Amino acid sequence: MTGQTIDPTARLAHIARFEPEIRAFTACDPARIEADLRTAPPGPLSGRLVGVKDIIDTAHYPTGYGSDIYAGHRATGDAACVALLRAAGATMAGKTVTTEFAFFRPGPTTNPFDPARTPGGSSSGSAAAVAMGMVDIGIASQTAASLTRPASYCGVVGFKPTYGRYALSGVKALGPSFDALGTITPDVATAIAADAVLAGPVPAASTIVPRAPARIGICRTPWWHEAEDGTRMAMAEAERIFSAHTTVEMVEMDEFAAAADLHITIMSFEAAQALAWEYQARRETCSPQIVGLIEAGRAITRATYEHAQNEAARLRTRAAALFTRYDMLVAPAAPGEAPLRTQGTGSPIFSRLWTLLYLPTVTLPGLVGPLNMPVGIQCLGPHGADETLFEHALWAEALLPTRPLSSLLKS
Amino acid sequence: MTGQTIDPTARLAHIARFEPEIRAFTACDPARIEADLRTAPPGPLSGRLVGVKDIIDTAHYPTGYGSDIYAGHRATGDAACVALLRAAGATMAGKTVTTEFAFFRPGPTTNPFDPARTPGGSSSGSAAAVAMGMVDIGIASQTAASLTRPASYCGVVGFKPTYGRYALSGVKALGPSFDALGTITPDVATAIAADAVLAGPVPAASTIVPRAPARIGICRTPWWHEAEDGTRMAMAEAERIFSAHTTVEMVEMDEFAAAADLHITIMSFEAAQALAWEYQARRETCSPQIVGLIEAGRAITRATYEHAQNEAARLRTRAAALFTRYDMLVAPAAPGEAPLRTQGTGSPIFSRLWTLLYLPTVTLPGLVGPLNMPVGIQCLGPHGADETLFEHALWAEALLPTRPLSSLLKS
Repeated sequence: MTGQTIDPTARLAHIARFEPEIRAFTACDPARIEADLRTAPPGPLSGRLVGVKDIIDTAHYPTGYGSDIYAGHRATGDAACVALLRAAGATMAGKTVTTEFAFFRPGPTTNPFDPARTPGGSSSGSAAAVAMGMVDIGIASQTAASLTRPASYCGVVGFKPTYGRYALSGVKALGPSFDALGTITPDVATAIAADAVLAGPVPAASTIVPRAPARIGICRTPWWHEAEDGTRMAMAEAERIFSAHTTVEMVEMDEFAAAADLHITIMSFEAAQALAWEYQARRETCSPQIVGLIEAGRAITRATYEHAQNEAARLRTRAAALFTRYDMLVAPAAPGEAPLRTQGTGSPIFSRLWTLLYLPTVTLPGLVGPLNMPVGIQCLGPHGADETLFEHALWAEALLPTRPLSSLLKS
Repeated sequence: MTGQTIDPTARLAHIARFEPEIRAFTACDPARIEADLRTAPPGPLSGRLVGVKDIIDTAHYPTGYGSDIYAGHRATGDAACVALLRAAGATMAGKTVTTEFAFFRPGPTTNPFDPARTPGGSSSGSAAAVAMGMVDIGIASQTAASLTRPASYCGVVGFKPTYGRYALSGVKALGPSFDALGTITPDVATAIAADAVLAGPVPAASTIVPRAPARIGICRTPWWHEAEDGTRMAMAEAERIFSAHTTVEMVEMDEFAAAADLHITIMSFEAAQALAWEYQARRETCSPQIVGLIEAGRAITRATYEHAQNEAARLRTRAAALFTRYDMLVAPAAPGEAPLRTQGTGSPIFSRLWTLLYLPTVTLPGLVGPLNMPVGIQCLGPHGADETLFEHALWAEALLPTRPLSSLLKS
């Protein structure tokens, strides 16, 4: 599976046309893109344009981590993920907008379906750029819900692998027990093509084809009361579609109810460690959101943190048991359609559990809410079974409605 | 426990006297140290000088990662560990010599006991600087044996915590599944004082006092045939000393025989990912050692890597079972006394297992080999039980012979 191929010239035209409104990029140089397209080595990703979330180091563009502290900062080299993509023939289209340190302070990016609404965060620019056809692959990251949520809000495919699958060298840390890179793409096949490179060090030949899961578990999760009409509609529709083709059951999830609080405890404690220099030496240049996160972390004792880590490990064992019955789980990707930008970048509540569990997840688009805005669903597989999840996600993607790029082009 | 306190003026005198021969530092500015001592905030580490291994970012000194690629590189800010130490009152004495990317290409540092011999690697400068009384705390790191081995060769205390305990933000990655920061100190009490800061985000009050382990397991390990006379003498002497005070038994370790190869597989594969940019874009500026490591990693398939990770997880479960019988394990810290510098930085064979198992380890000095050079032993505790290990290590340290700093001052 190599995914949809679009002439990079068309991507450049989309950038010229849409970027002034969407504001997906912190840095993008069309002349450099054209030059790089001519000099990129041949490889499995030749001709593909990649938007790189700006918490990821690049040699040729500034890397600001969404923070005023690092405005104009230049890394010496490319992050490992960028080097792997370039060696496989891909061309960097530029750096994409991230919230500050991949937490909550939003950037300028607008939602492709409604400029008054958020693209979601923290991988805001990568999701919007893929939705608008400006890049083939958006490199994104997730510590709580920073990849799954924007993929859902922007109507694109989001893939966060099993924790640890993609190398984090050159990526700014937020909560190292959860920090993970992933991709945002127009389709699952493109995510598979990128995975064959990013899971390397050497690109592997992929033989992934669609395969029906024998039994799907529907996970409303213990936070279902936070699901809005959009997510309730999408989950009902997904259940209806999938149950016409395979066995679908509801999964009782009460035993995971503590997961969201455990995630918050671990992430806050670790952010207070990871961002110690920014807090100690540059506090006045941090947003209230980041200072709040760090100060919450500083109020947590090491004993409380270690207890949370032990509980998280116990829940991972329980999650492994779920997959003895189900081949794939389906869960909400966000509470609903994208909120207004004035309300922030949306709630991470529907991903904290899965991030804590280290499971691979593919968010699929195609469904909509009451405002006709996209609402994703996420498909989850067992720990380490990323290729199997891709097989099932290809099957599921083919059953869901398609929303071609042209549906966005209202003007 | 706060450890030996020496007037920082004496440390500065040691730097002036010994650094020209020892060459522990890549950067050290006595005027800056004196200024920083005057302006450091009050805290639990006030007056302590810290040498920071040069794979760790610092705002005020260049950070070269031991690599010609990064010569003169300046980080925007301090790594998290440096920020935590400074906030606790410590003063940075400068950057200490590391091998290239914390792998095998040696720097100029000499062994304090014999200038023809290696201080060990990769934390060469931190170990030598502590041995010579130039700093109170050497920040070090370990991916294979990079902390335990130089501690053993330089006759100082080395502490590598349970994997994940100290934040790695701002530390150059080599093999992320194993990369860990730790400390090299003159005594266990100083390691405890540093741990109370580095394990935070907020320094915790420490109540650690010496405690005898009820039962010690002696682990010659499956690599005992690689132990030289120095290590055989040290292990026999440790067994004799400890068995006079508590129960000591030999531990049969055959089930761990695959650990060294598993460690090499995982580390090589991950180094090929983590150093992808250096390999793709700056290969001609990498040493043959690093290119060899990366190319070994590139020859490993993802399936082989994942199998090794699964086996490593299985061995961690087996190690946990060992600690139902033993409170502390004692094992070789290196094959013997420090080799000649012309032979490299020494073999990591006696630490690959413990690094793979994620266990906390304290290397204790005091014993010697046939050349009258130091030979350490390492004490290991259960995963996550770093404080308990410190209690046992304090007990063990008090029983071993002491070698005061003045024993080094031959001239």
